[in-house]
Order: sequence, then structure tokens, then C-alpha cells
Amino acid sequence: MATARQSEEARLLGEWARLLFGTLAAAGVSDVFISPGSRSTPFAWLALQTPGLRCHAVVDERCAAFAALGFARAAGRPAALLCTSGSAAANYFPAIVEAALAFLPLLVITADRPFEVQHSGAAQCIDQVKLYGSHVRRYFELGLPDAAPSALAGLRRASTQAVAMTQHPVPGPVHLNARARKPLEPAPAGAETHLLTARVSALLEAPLTRHVPALRRPSRDGLREIARALRAAHAGVILVGPLSSHAPLLSLEIGALASALGFPIMAEATSQMRFALAAHPLACGEFGWLFCDANSRRRHAADVLLCLGAAPAWRDLASWVLESRAVRYVLCDHEGADPEGDARVIVYGDLLSSLTLLRQELATLAPNPSGPQREFAISLLAQGRRCRTVVAEELARTAAPGRGGAPTGDLMDEGAMDEGAAVACIARTLPCGSQWILGNSLALREVDAYVTHAADTVTLSQRGVNGIDGLVSGAVGSALAAGRPTLLLLGDVSLLHDLGGLTLARLVNTPLVFAVIDNEGGRIFDQLPVRELYGGDTALAQFWRTPPGLDLAHAARLHGIAYSAPATLAALATATGEALQRPAATLLQVRVAPDSAREMRERVLERLAAAAGGVPA
Amino acid sequence: MATARQSEEARLLGEWARLLFGTLAAAGVSDVFISPGSRSTPFAWLALQTPGLRCHAVVDERCAAFAALGFARAAGRPAALLCTSGSAAANYFPAIVEAALAFLPLLVITADRPFEVQHSGAAQCIDQVKLYGSHVRRYFELGLPDAAPSALAGLRRASTQAVAMTQHPVPGPVHLNARARKPLEPAPAGAETHLLTARVSALLEAPLTRHVPALRRPSRDGLREIARALRAAHAGVILVGPLSSHAPLLSLEIGALASALGFPIMAEATSQMRFALAAHPLACGEFGWLFCDANSRRRHAADVLLCLGAAPAWRDLASWVLESRAVRYVLCDHEGADPEGDARVIVYGDLLSSLTLLRQELATLAPNPSGPQREFAISLLAQGRRCRTVVAEELARTAAPGRGGAPTGDLMDEGAMDEGAAVACIARTLPCGSQWILGNSLALREVDAYVTHAADTVTLSQRGVNGIDGLVSGAVGSALAAGRPTLLLLGDVSLLHDLGGLTLARLVNTPLVFAVIDNEGGRIFDQLPVRELYGGDTALAQFWRTPPGLDLAHAARLHGIAYSAPATLAALATATGEALQRPAATLLQVRVAPDSAREMRERVLERLAAAAGGVPA
Repeated sequence: MATARQSEEARLLGEWARLLFGTLAAAGVSDVFISPGSRSTPFAWLALQTPGLRCHAVVDERCAAFAALGFARAAGRPAALLCTSGSAAANYFPAIVEAALAFLPLLVITADRPFEVQHSGAAQCIDQVKLYGSHVRRYFELGLPDAAPSALAGLRRASTQAVAMTQHPVPGPVHLNARARKPLEPAPAGAETHLLTARVSALLEAPLTRHVPALRRPSRDGLREIARALRAAHAGVILVGPLSSHAPLLSLEIGALASALGFPIMAEATSQMRFALAAHPLACGEFGWLFCDANSRRRHAADVLLCLGAAPAWRDLASWVLESRAVRYVLCDHEGADPEGDARVIVYGDLLSSLTLLRQELATLAPNPSGPQREFAISLLAQGRRCRTVVAEELARTAAPGRGGAPTGDLMDEGAMDEGAAVACIARTLPCGSQWILGNSLALREVDAYVTHAADTVTLSQRGVNGIDGLVSGAVGSALAAGRPTLLLLGDVSLLHDLGGLTLARLVNTPLVFAVIDNEGGRIFDQLPVRELYGGDTALAQFWRTPPGLDLAHAARLHGIAYSAPATLAALATATGEALQRPAATLLQVRVAPDSAREMRERVLERLAAAAGGVPA
Repeated sequence: MATARQSEEARLLGEWARLLFGTLAAAGVSDVFISPGSRSTPFAWLALQTPGLRCHAVVDERCAAFAALGFARAAGRPAALLCTSGSAAANYFPAIVEAALAFLPLLVITADRPFEVQHSGAAQCIDQVKLYGSHVRRYFELGLPDAAPSALAGLRRASTQAVAMTQHPVPGPVHLNARARKPLEPAPAGAETHLLTARVSALLEAPLTRHVPALRRPSRDGLREIARALRAAHAGVILVGPLSSHAPLLSLEIGALASALGFPIMAEATSQMRFALAAHPLACGEFGWLFCDANSRRRHAADVLLCLGAAPAWRDLASWVLESRAVRYVLCDHEGADPEGDARVIVYGDLLSSLTLLRQELATLAPNPSGPQREFAISLLAQGRRCRTVVAEELARTAAPGRGGAPTGDLMDEGAMDEGAAVACIARTLPCGSQWILGNSLALREVDAYVTHAADTVTLSQRGVNGIDGLVSGAVGSALAAGRPTLLLLGDVSLLHDLGGLTLARLVNTPLVFAVIDNEGGRIFDQLPVRELYGGDTALAQFWRTPPGLDLAHAARLHGIAYSAPATLAALATATGEALQRPAATLLQVRVAPDSAREMRERVLERLAAAAGGVPA
């Protein structure tokens, strides 16, 4: 019954979508996360037909977007998203906001209705023009399929450019809005003798424009100024905050720079460098304990700080930075590395290049003439070792045989594990070549507090906006991208926020472990001043802690995921190790004593204070 | 250790938040859905302290927003949302988009960081200014707490106005962005002798500005023109599409108008009027069958249509409207009621007033002089009854005793239920005074196809953007608002999209049933042309159907919800009836034969065609 015009439109629709996805594949897109819908039919169909594209079906667009984000985090290149028109597209927003501030590439394709129905009340039709506002790097309105040669060439150009713009000049999300008119079912590709088919095929076979980005080379003048200041330091430290960069040489370069300067290195786990640098003689990973009170911060005040990457997550570290009144120099790939707003110089540019050039500049200067920097480093590192000893003793105490790890009670105590000990235990179990992803809120802070060494692993985290949303889906995306054993360490509230993300586990056929620290709610609030407001009132406290109270065995069964709830640290180590060898997903419910995070922290701090006569010294 | 300035700021913060929530409560807000966070601490704390506010803790902001939307849908007034800064706020977006196009009031309050950290890389800090773009009715930047008398008075004015603007001039979402600086813990309210406390208390005790909205009175001239056209009709019909209005008199007025005109009434379930009008002698609810092919549409072509509310969801109905080339008159509260764009006159204004005035205008005209309208109505209604008989026979056949409802096989067949029969069975079980909420995609269409009568219930649906997202959370909100037994009828894919919404069931202590039609994926696509693309290829089909493949017993256990998977219609009726009497949530997994929706539709259409010798007549 199709009219000639409809047949022509169906053919055009198919060719248009073929050109779009053929170009995206040629431009380097390998994975597409597709959510179901009607308006997106032609695009989904042609994505499925495009050689070289791996398509994943994901019902919930929010999950799909976080999966694509996790993919980008692990792969360093964008995955594409495709959804239908309407509120579907709005579900991408949380991951887009994160991608923008984490500087991660993301290619968002939303299907849309034709122009003629805008503001008409047509079904699933919202105003998608610039839907994500200033939170995407660029918006491309692709319009309706158009057979004009200039329009076809323009689609080829725009989609190539869009992929490039997810990486340059500033990595982030890019939005393509692609319209289609009914009928939405594209005609099969025509014979190559058909003019339109031939034209599209010719475009697809023609060489693609390669967008060669500028190198973002840092200014040597700026680095020279910094080099001189660093050389004059008496109490200098290198701080490494959250980084999304993937340069494997970065940790070596940081280490070499630290050695050249005699500066201790404080690298948060979110920097991806903490464990790679752990063996460095100047590594000082105990900043979570060193700077826990004003006296100790004063004792080890810095005078010069070299800050790499984004702002640190540790509150005490931030306080130390602030109270030290140190002159701060920042090297960063992108803006947003100086929330305090008092850095002396910020040198923008590729971080690895900055470090290399900075070391070259240092080599032209006389070696550090003063002893104070050396004395400062020795004192700081010695105090760090003392902290580490106390922490290790406390961890060992809770990990005594026969005990789950309850903070008090005799050896036969069957109490729940201690949170810090559980996190340390999981870290010890990670095999070389695996990747682990640190959840926000308490999880990543526990790692900084209790884990100084880990195997040669990739460490990822979500530190653009630091949300607890989408972590499960994101881990799936990272596992798909890396293909290596993957462990997500997250809290029970974070899991609840992305419960639907567990559905995506079926996409993965490599080891994938969701290690859920179940401490009955968001216990980070118990370490914040708000605790003094709600105190022991659980009815009030629930508005902060929001305890999920879930037996996750049911969640695992629902999604066909293996499940384990180890009751002891030994069982936890075994379960984690085994799960990281099984080529499928496992949910570990790690029940810990709810107050143990706060209590162990208090015990460690007490011992440190006692050892120092009130001040760690 | 707090400095005097900090104490003063903490007091200001508390008083600022007290004024905000005290004013919202006085302006008619009763319920606040609070998601956990740190930046929102002062606002959450004071919301909890404000007499008259009912606070609900919800981890996932997307769920919270849909719950507030469901609340508004059932209550006809806004609930408030409160979340922390960052991606948390982005999670509200899907529900905001729906609220805007469903014309439902929603008050969105996002906590934000102080101005000094914008674009600084500070944690959980995004640009929240106009975060939702043009999808909210109004954006209020509340700024930081400010003790200036004009600022306090301004907060009082703005928050009052914001509540009013969720309803007038056009109902929808309104966004308040509320900033706070650390420390985030407000000081306890000071003595009334403290100047600031006294000032805030005085403001809270002062009478609130009442915003008295314009009546949106429809134009009598426009209605007079419509009245004359209706009176001259030979084949006129009243079509009632999705309505979000809650006027209880609306169905009576529609019925009276139909009687005065002799027009058949076709009211979709989404109109909320279908069942209230079912007993009307001119009610013709069989439009899903009457207009299923081009011949039958031609046979009963209309010449004049009076359209109420938004565009109908039924594809065949839309085709009939289009092909009839009827002159269309539209009465509507808000824009978006004419996607076809060819209505002759659209009269905006309060729908009940429009109907009343239209009837007054009709009374001034001579009665319909021609017989054709009467003959048209008789013929249409007779054909409708024939359709109903065929449908009833098919339903009865699948519901034969001893059978689950499989479409073929003998009486002992233990096959899965038939989808249409299951939906009809659930509808029959609804008690008077209950409310049911119809999921999108297939669920609401099944109701229109198989359910003509239901008890005196409230029927709700999500027809702004027609998304399948947030339905579970929305049902919780509607149950909280109405306090009456509530049943949500939805598909398995919709459930999967809002799996986390099941967590919210614990907020409800009235009967709440999630009746999940499990047909192994989004079967609406099997009734769309895309089925010809994927055919029998399940690997391809999954990108449209996305079959969840979940044993929902585990989901129910995870959330502590009662569960039942009735295998027969009798068991389904019993389970539904019992669940609607239990003051808690129940998950009903209604497994139906996956192809039964399409197959029964095909059988009914075949029989109708056979009876008419190829054309229903």
C-alpha cells in the first residue's frame, strides 16, 4: 500500500541512517548502547547492520548512558548512545553532567520527531533542541533525512566532527539530534545502480576527514616559573588528585619529578596513580591520618605544593592545604583544578608533557641548595610510617582468626566484619591486570585510609560530579571496554541508586564483581557534622543514611548473578578471588558492622594522639 | 571552635530554611520527597522540623521525582522535591519533562553550592542555573541565605509565588535553586528575642499573599461558532483523549452534551472518563475495533468531531479522524491538543466551563433538524455492540474453566493466560473507590480494547510524553496522595525501567498492587511495522522487545513486597482482589502467552471481517 513517495522516503531513511552509522564506525566508534523505542527504529536497525559496530540493548536509558560513560572511562574513547524521542532522552542527563565534568567522551544520539509536530502535543514529542543546555560540548541538529548531495555530505562531515569533538578541544559529551518521519522502517538497501544508494556508498568509501587535534602543549615559560619556585621550596609536596588521563607513563614521570625535587608524593586513589607510586621512596599515602587534626597539620605545614589533576577528595588534606598557606602551583589538562582559587600559577596542557618539560627546566637549575626540604620529607615520611603501623595493627586486630572483625569482644565473637578491614582485604585480593572501580562517598575514602598497596591494577572512579548514581552500569561499561577482570567497590546506597544497572551484567562475559559494602546506609554522614543534628534518632537519621535494608541475595537471583555474603575476612578473600576468575558477574554482599568505619577511624586517631601526647609527632 | 561569624551564618542558614519550608507549608505544600545529600542538609533538616509537612526519604532522585509527579496526578496539587547539588538534580529531568507536557504541578528544590565555587572544580558542583532549560515554567535563583529584611521578604514572596506558579497560568514544574555555604548544620532556632529569629517568625505569622488565578474562561464567541457547526453535523462524534483534569462533574457534562447533540462518545481510558461514561446510551468504546481497516473507517466516516483533551493514543482512531476529513473542533485546557494541525477552531479555557457554555449556546439554537446524525449514531453504536460481542466471546473462550487462557488447545491446556483476558479480569476485580494507573505502550491500549466497564474508580495514566519511565514510583506517589486502594497495570519492560521504584513501596500503608503483564518484552513492537524487519530473529528483535526475563518473585522478596504469580484467570481475580484489601504492596506477575495480544487481536479482526464479508458492517 506504500505510495511511491513513501517508498522513496523509506529508502532515504535507510540510506541516511546507513551513512550516519557507517561514518561513526569509520570514525572510531565501536560500541553502541541502544535503548528500545519506535522513533529510533531506523537508526537502531542500521546500527545493527553496520559492520564493526557492537550493539548492546539496554532498557533504561540512564543505565545505558552510565554504561557508555564507564566504557569511555576505561577505553579513553567514546561509545555511542541511541534512544527514542521524549523522556527517554532526559534519562541520559545524569551521565551527561558527569561526562562533562569528568572530561570523558560521550556521543549521544537522540531520535526525534519531524519539525512539523513541534509543540503540537504529538506523542513522545518534547523540545529536544539543546536538551542538555550548556552541559554538552556541542549540539548538532541533523534535521530530517535529506537526499540533497550537500546534505548527505554534511551528515558525513557532522558525524565525523561530532566524534572528534567528544575528544577535542575538551573531551566531553556531544549531542546529535536525528529526526525521522513515518514510516520508520527503512527500505532494504537498493541496488548500487540506484542513484541515492550509489551516492551514499561512494561517501562511505571515500576517505574520512581525519581531525588532528592540537597537542595542548604547555607553556615553557609558565613551567620555568614553577620550576624555580619548586627548587626554592623548604617544605614542598606533590599532590595528585583525581585524573581521568590514561597515559601509562604518567606515574613514572611523577616519580621521577618527585625524586628530582625531593618532594613527598601524596596520590589519592582517584588519581589512578596511588598504587603505581606506592613503592616510590617518597610516596606518602597516609594523608588521611597525617592531617587529621589542626596540630598535626601545623607541624607538617607545606610551603610549596605542586598539584596535579583535580581537587582532592580528602577533607583533611584540603584543610592541610588551606592551613599551610603554601604557594600552590597547578598542572592540569583541563579547568576545574583549583576550587580554592588561590593557586599562584596554573599551567594548562597535556599533563605528561608538562611533567617532562618541568623536569627539563629543573635540570637547568642548580640542585636544591637547602637541607630543609630533605628534613621535611624525612619527617613527613617517618610520621606516615608511624600512622601506617597503627592502621596496620588495628586492621590486624580486627582480622584476628575466628573473628568476623567486630571491633570489640573476644576471639569467638561472630560479629560483622570491620569496614576498613573488609576494604583492605578486597584490595589485597585483586589480581594483576585487573581493574577496580571505586564508588563515591565512603568507598574511595576507605581505600585511601586503609589501602596503601595493591597489585598492578587500573583504578577508576567517578570524580566529575562525584555522584553515587550509575556506578553499577558504569562498571559494566568499563568491563566491556577493558575485557579484564573488573571489581566495583561501592556502598549499599549507591547500589540501590542503580539497582536496575544489575540487568546489564548479562552483557559481560568476563569476571565482574560488585562488592557491596553493606553498612546499613550512607555512613559517610555519620562522619559529617550532620550527625550531631540527628544523633541517635533513627527516624531522623534515615533522611541522610537512607538505609536500604535489602537482602541482596534476591537482587542477585533476580538478575541471574552469582551471590555470596562472606561472613569473615578469610571467606571474603576467597569469594573475591574466585569471583574474579569466573567469566561472569558476581554480587558480594559484604556486611560490615555499621559503625565500624567511624569507630575504627576514632580508634586509630586516639592511638595516634596518645603516641604523640595529644599530637601525632 | 565555631567563630562568631560561623555561628551567625549557621543561625542565618537555619532561619532561611525555616522561612522557606514554613512558607511552602503555609502555601499548601503537604508532602516533600527528600533524597539524601550533604549540601541539602539545612533544607532537609528544616523541612523535617516544619509542622504540617510529611517528609519521605527516597534514595534515587529519579524515583523521587516520579513519585512527586504521581502525587500531583492524584492530588491535583504539587508535592515538593529536595535533593543535593550535582548530578542528583539531573536525575529529576525525566519527571520534569513529563510534568511539563502533562500539565502537572511539581515544585523542584535543588540545593546548590555558593556562587564563589562556580566553574571551580569543587565537588558535586555543576551549573544548576536554568538546569532544566525551557522544560520548567519558571526558574527561581534563591541565592545564598541573606539576613537583609528585603531578602527575607523576597524569599517569602518567591516561595509563595513558586507554589502558585506550579498551577497558574499553566500547571507544570517550577524550579527553586537554593544555595548554602558550609557549615551546613543550622544552629537551633534562637530565642524569639534574637532579631533574626523574631523577624522570620513575624514573616511566618504574617498572612501569606494569596495568588488568585484567572479563571481561564473560554470565549463565548468561539463556542457559539462551534455550537452552530455541531448542530449542523450529520455524522458527529465526541472524542475524549487524555485529560489531566480532575473535575468530577466533567463526565456528567460530557454526557449531557452528547445527549443534546446525539453524538456518540468515544472516550479513551486515558481521558479518565471512559468508565464513568460507559453506561451512557451514546457511549461507544469500541473504537479500537471499529476503525481497524480502511473500509470500516470509510463506512463510518465522521463529518464533525468535537475533540476534548489531548490527542488520542489509538493509532486506528487517529487514522479514522484523518481519513474522515471531518471538521474538527477542539476544547482544551492547554495547548498541544491538535498534533494534526488542521482543527477548525480551538477554544482554550477551563474545560468544564467550555462544556457548560457550549451546551447553553446549543440550547439557543433550533434542535437538530436532520435525521442523519441519529442514523449515524444508531449505525455506529450497533456496530460497536457487534464488535463488543465478538470481543466478549473471544475473551470468554480463552477464559474457559480449567484453562489458563491459551489461545488454542483443549480445555485441559495449562498454557499461559491470554493478555487481553488477563487485563479484562483485573479490571473486573477493581473495587469501587479504588484508583488504577495504566502503564504506557501496550497496557493502556489493552484496556481500551478489552475493558468497557469498570467499577467507580479513578483512572490515571502518564500521557504527557507517554514514557514508560517512572511508573512504579509514580504509582507510589498516587497512592500516598489518594490513600485509596491503588493498582498499577504495567508491562514487564516498564517495570524493569523503574525497578528501583519498588523500594518506595515501603512508604505506603494502603493497598498498592503492581500488576505486571509479563509477555516477555515490549510486545507493542510486534504490532508495529518494525516486526517485519526483525521477523523471527530473536537476536535482532531483542533491540526492540528487550525481554527482561526476570523472575519477579526475587524482586518482591528483595523489597519485602508480597508476591503472587497466578496461573489462571480465576487465581488472578482472587489474587488481585485480596491484594487490593491488604494495606501494603503486592507484586503480581501476570505471565501471559507472549504472542497472545497480537494473536487475539488478529482473531477478533478476522471474525469481524468474516461477519461483514470482508468488511465489518
